[in-house]
Amino acid sequence: MSTFGYIFRVTTYGESHCKSVGCIVDGVPPGMTLTEEDIQPQLTRRRPGQSKLSTPRNEKDKVEIQSGVEFKKTLGTPIAMLIRNEDQRPHDYSDMDNFPRPSHADYTYLEKYNLKASSGGGRASARETIGRVAAGAIAEKFLAQVSNVQIVGFVTQIGSIKMNRDPFDPSFHHLLNTITREKVDSAGPIRCPDPNLAGGMVKEIEKYRGNQDSIGGVVTCVVRNVPTGLGEPCFDKLEALLAHAMLSIPASKGFEIGSGFEGVSVPGSKHNDPFYFDEEKQKLRTKTNHSGGIQGGISNGENIYFSVAFKSVATISQEQETADYDGKPGVLAAKGRHDPAVTPRAIPIVEAMTALVLADALLIQKSRDFAKSVTH
Amino acid sequence: MSTFGYIFRVTTYGESHCKSVGCIVDGVPPGMTLTEEDIQPQLTRRRPGQSKLSTPRNEKDKVEIQSGVEFKKTLGTPIAMLIRNEDQRPHDYSDMDNFPRPSHADYTYLEKYNLKASSGGGRASARETIGRVAAGAIAEKFLAQVSNVQIVGFVTQIGSIKMNRDPFDPSFHHLLNTITREKVDSAGPIRCPDPNLAGGMVKEIEKYRGNQDSIGGVVTCVVRNVPTGLGEPCFDKLEALLAHAMLSIPASKGFEIGSGFEGVSVPGSKHNDPFYFDEEKQKLRTKTNHSGGIQGGISNGENIYFSVAFKSVATISQEQETADYDGKPGVLAAKGRHDPAVTPRAIPIVEAMTALVLADALLIQKSRDFAKSVTH
Amino acid sequence: MSTFGYIFRVTTYGESHCKSVGCIVDGVPPGMTLTEEDIQPQLTRRRPGQSKLSTPRNEKDKVEIQSGVEFKKTLGTPIAMLIRNEDQRPHDYSDMDNFPRPSHADYTYLEKYNLKASSGGGRASARETIGRVAAGAIAEKFLAQVSNVQIVGFVTQIGSIKMNRDPFDPSFHHLLNTITREKVDSAGPIRCPDPNLAGGMVKEIEKYRGNQDSIGGVVTCVVRNVPTGLGEPCFDKLEALLAHAMLSIPASKGFEIGSGFEGVSVPGSKHNDPFYFDEEKQKLRTKTNHSGGIQGGISNGENIYFSVAFKSVATISQEQETADYDGKPGVLAAKGRHDPAVTPRAIPIVEAMTALVLADALLIQKSRDFAKSVTH
Amino acid sequence: MSTFGYIFRVTTYGESHCKSVGCIVDGVPPGMTLTEEDIQPQLTRRRPGQSKLSTPRNEKDKVEIQSGVEFKKTLGTPIAMLIRNEDQRPHDYSDMDNFPRPSHADYTYLEKYNLKASSGGGRASARETIGRVAAGAIAEKFLAQVSNVQIVGFVTQIGSIKMNRDPFDPSFHHLLNTITREKVDSAGPIRCPDPNLAGGMVKEIEKYRGNQDSIGGVVTCVVRNVPTGLGEPCFDKLEALLAHAMLSIPASKGFEIGSGFEGVSVPGSKHNDPFYFDEEKQKLRTKTNHSGGIQGGISNGENIYFSVAFKSVATISQEQETADYDGKPGVLAAKGRHDPAVTPRAIPIVEAMTALVLADALLIQKSRDFAKSVTH
Repeated sequence: MSTFGYIFRVTTYGESHCKSVGCIVDGVPPGMTLTEEDIQPQLTRRRPGQSKLSTPRNEKDKVEIQSGVEFKKTLGTPIAMLIRNEDQRPHDYSDMDNFPRPSHADYTYLEKYNLKASSGGGRASARETIGRVAAGAIAEKFLAQVSNVQIVGFVTQIGSIKMNRDPFDPSFHHLLNTITREKVDSAGPIRCPDPNLAGGMVKEIEKYRGNQDSIGGVVTCVVRNVPTGLGEPCFDKLEALLAHAMLSIPASKGFEIGSGFEGVSVPGSKHNDPFYFDEEKQKLRTKTNHSGGIQGGISNGENIYFSVAFKSVATISQEQETADYDGKPGVLAAKGRHDPAVTPRAIPIVEAMTALVLADALLIQKSRDFAKSVTH
Repeated sequence: MSTFGYIFRVTTYGESHCKSVGCIVDGVPPGMTLTEEDIQPQLTRRRPGQSKLSTPRNEKDKVEIQSGVEFKKTLGTPIAMLIRNEDQRPHDYSDMDNFPRPSHADYTYLEKYNLKASSGGGRASARETIGRVAAGAIAEKFLAQVSNVQIVGFVTQIGSIKMNRDPFDPSFHHLLNTITREKVDSAGPIRCPDPNLAGGMVKEIEKYRGNQDSIGGVVTCVVRNVPTGLGEPCFDKLEALLAHAMLSIPASKGFEIGSGFEGVSVPGSKHNDPFYFDEEKQKLRTKTNHSGGIQGGISNGENIYFSVAFKSVATISQEQETADYDGKPGVLAAKGRHDPAVTPRAIPIVEAMTALVLADALLIQKSRDFAKSVTH
Repeated sequence: MSTFGYIFRVTTYGESHCKSVGCIVDGVPPGMTLTEEDIQPQLTRRRPGQSKLSTPRNEKDKVEIQSGVEFKKTLGTPIAMLIRNEDQRPHDYSDMDNFPRPSHADYTYLEKYNLKASSGGGRASARETIGRVAAGAIAEKFLAQVSNVQIVGFVTQIGSIKMNRDPFDPSFHHLLNTITREKVDSAGPIRCPDPNLAGGMVKEIEKYRGNQDSIGGVVTCVVRNVPTGLGEPCFDKLEALLAHAMLSIPASKGFEIGSGFEGVSVPGSKHNDPFYFDEEKQKLRTKTNHSGGIQGGISNGENIYFSVAFKSVATISQEQETADYDGKPGVLAAKGRHDPAVTPRAIPIVEAMTALVLADALLIQKSRDFAKSVTH
Repeated sequence: MSTFGYIFRVTTYGESHCKSVGCIVDGVPPGMTLTEEDIQPQLTRRRPGQSKLSTPRNEKDKVEIQSGVEFKKTLGTPIAMLIRNEDQRPHDYSDMDNFPRPSHADYTYLEKYNLKASSGGGRASARETIGRVAAGAIAEKFLAQVSNVQIVGFVTQIGSIKMNRDPFDPSFHHLLNTITREKVDSAGPIRCPDPNLAGGMVKEIEKYRGNQDSIGGVVTCVVRNVPTGLGEPCFDKLEALLAHAMLSIPASKGFEIGSGFEGVSVPGSKHNDPFYFDEEKQKLRTKTNHSGGIQGGISNGENIYFSVAFKSVATISQEQETADYDGKPGVLAAKGRHDPAVTPRAIPIVEAMTALVLADALLIQKSRDFAKSVTH
């Protein structure tokens, strides 16, 4: 469904050719300063057309708050936001291609809904993520006010060019401690903080663009200053909620937290994160952080970090031998220019979904914190 | 929370030292033949002590159906099941170790609940998964009756010994098409279907056991005969639900579906799954299956396959330099014998969670199938 | 929260002085013809200012579909709808009354949200119900396509003037079988189908208006052609869902289904609905229908009927001795003209909430119908 | 479904002839003293066979806590409880009556589930409520620790004998302020606190018992010391949650809160609850309480009170002219002795459901209280 979260909850709507896309955010705490300027920056970061690396179509994506805010303060009531589509004209199916696009959602939407929409797999469109990013910006602002929570996503891989993200390497953890959104953006449109690799990644993308092809990548994300105790045992472990959130982003194919897939070959004696007493913070902490900030499904106060794999974009201009809806073999070549690599643009979406997960988990835990303070 | 699913829904309970562990399964269709013999086999596969590869403690884990079944037929009402704990005696905290076990849930449970239970991070115990496995067995039986859905998990990695699971290799897809649960079990306790590697994996585990250490692994799972149309666009994409389910299993650190992390470096022209018409099945299918059976969040009828990373077990007998609850440095060595590699035992849990996700998604989609058949 | 339903689900937003009010309807089946003309009539029926009986403010309340519909057919994706507020200017608190309005939501919103919004208890505003009515119109259209479900609400009481709604009187059941929305509206703005009482009810309202006072009423609602099997045992009995829905309507204070409060004094021998075989419909039916179409929480195919009590409107122009926010006693008299009786306008809201409950219950049951057809 | 609540959540299971009935309570705060003695009293109050007024079958209904409690303290993990059924033997359908019992759930269960269970409409059995009562006892204990919340239900009507429950009569509010569970029980098995009526009510029941008939009644419930701010605007108004809870109790047909159905004929000028400053409590309160402690869907700190109508029991020994499952007319007379009036026994169920609603609403609001304390 199109709703995510329990206490802090977003519901999104919209596809490519309708009037607008947007969302309703329910459960936003009252009394928080909020204007469209708090939301627009992440929407702008998500926009295509910001550089020659991505599609040249320039969508304005201006957010308009409809409700829930008065005199620049949230009311505690649902905040509806809409972003108008520039291209609101659906085209007739007669104009449409007879081919379901390979690895796109055209075929599965037909199977599920028994219709071919103008936009093909409509809600599989990247425009669906606009509502998420708008909602996430509100969640982020709230989290920052709670405990200075900082969420920073960055590109660690484009195609075969891979930045060091070894969870057993202290220099990677130094990066996690210090990376900021400003640093990420100053690294150029590729949003990879390693200056030695950014150039190569750009070249990698250009190479595939030249071939009318596309390529995938990996976004890594760190969250600092997360309170302890977030996440529920069993089914709603914090990493399970994050995995759910990340695999709900279009084109994502994998998720790993902390040591992830690398960690399976590291023995417990090295993998375990022993404790020590942090004199400055006056609390128990872990010497290493291979767990990724979550143990037993519950945040332990260390950095939460995880990576998300994004496959190469399905829509390419190169000719593809495939079959049409009737099963007749044929050749499909998408018209127009297409974004050869969406991974850098996925960053604000990853950040938004992270913020939504954490805002909800935090609000749930705060009720538990209250409860345990009164029981006896 | 301890509830998973909407229409087919399980709620579990229990920790290590209470009277019983178990679950309530709500939404099980009526009229299905069901006895404890349908459920016991997967519980037995989950049990420790089945070979010298795992912990020697022999839990009986006999399931007792409490409700929802009459004359061996389901009633459509909730099915409660319980499995008695053999060790029901909690021990006093005075008897407990003063050390939070590194990378276990002791510390985070203390932070969340403000107490130190006899079992430490109680619901983080592997015994919590018993209820899931029991519920999954029912879901599996239902799915088999719907469309002969087959769910088979197997070990593809122990430590650094990794079986071929390359999604771009046709021989891997041949394996996915032919592997059965019987073949997996006949491969010995390691449950790796590659006979050339199983022996080495056993040695790998023995090596770490000898060092009083532990090691992780990867479980890969394939689902055959899934109807098209399962999964919801946006937040409840089928892969998102699977990722949620898998990351909710204790010790899991990663999830990838279809091409996963490998796929990010493969260009769209090779990654895309083109269509062809399958004369035998009289339907559109894909020539390759790098998508892993899901496109746009919705099942396309091809094999669903994914892998789950399990870290090395946190509880080891080796001495660990850590700190106690008061922050005082010290050395912790777990008493008793411990399972050096739980990955093979994770298989029935992975299968159960997969079945729970699919049964729920299928029931939701069937209501949509009805609806689209009457609208005009 | 602002979300209602599982499979057919609405989320609403908006208060009095924001840009728009509206909703997102998720789970609408694809392929259904739908335009704004399907939705506008019920919105117009809900509007104030339709006669001198209600408030003269003329809100236009034109619905604008944002998404989920293409070429007049639903896509199966979320349908967002918005209705612009004519009065979008919040006023400063300095301009506001210092008095929490008695029996309004000003005080409780302050306690809950710690702020005094321009609209007082913002989401307690009647404008909040606009989104419900828009969503309900879609649910109604779907239900009509499934089995010609007909939902008709009508006024059975204004103040002390009460129409016969005795569940043990066959003539009342004759009315339930024959009443239509057209008949209700042709009865004039009071929407009471008893021509002998409608005039008296109008006079009753005029009397209270003359005193700058207000008065309550009762809406009764019948649903015909409901399939059997809707509703879930235990917590989600169909009457429980309807009660939830009805008590969520502003100003409602009571709900009774079938025999309701009257029925408690009727012995089982008379209250029970015996069965007979309906030759025409070739099915088991009940001779009487004191149950109100639901038994054991599940629809039995007979008419569902229930009544909802609405208290007198809290906002009156008469002076009231009360206290201000600081606790200082004083006299409050609301400015402007106020609707002395909202009961007739509640009808489309009651109908909408009924449709939302039934569409969701029906979609859930259709998945169960499928399931029971395949199990063995 | 069989699950109720979000943060404080109960899932129940069980029907008449299975091994046990019970529940899992999830979200119980940790660190609360809890033993079976906290739960048993309400179960015992619910039991039949406590006097000649109700059915003589003596079920023991001993609760056994399975999990979530250690050394008499809650762990914060799910608390499973089971109560063994004494009669665990299902009987074959060949032994069953061929008649669906009028106004029972036999027919609708057959329509929904396509089977005739030994217990007929299994989950419609009164034994289903045992799990609710057990869960409610935990919720009650928590609420008492939060703010000395007191929940007291009592009988205000049996058949045509009706106690004063006029919300506009101060003496009724005096009763609401002073009634205790002890007073209710000391009033004898009828549980009506008006000594002048209790005798007549007993006679009323005896009269119907003599006729092998049954009769209904009304339970009124008051909740004192509820914190302000509970309940959510829009769909989850506190009265909507209570109505949902009450109409989910078997045999309930109506719900009214505060002024209820009586209040519709009282003008706003008299119905409104004006404010005054309570010097003792140093807070704003209302002079009257026709609202029933909830305004705009949110608790205002005054007494919450409401009434629930229970129809006469469907199972009677008197002969009934009805039809069998095949539609053939015939005469049904239930065997055995049956409870002629279950209303007094409904009290602990009403209290339990009230506690479950409030515990959940309170925990949700506490997260909002936290949030509003940190936003700026």
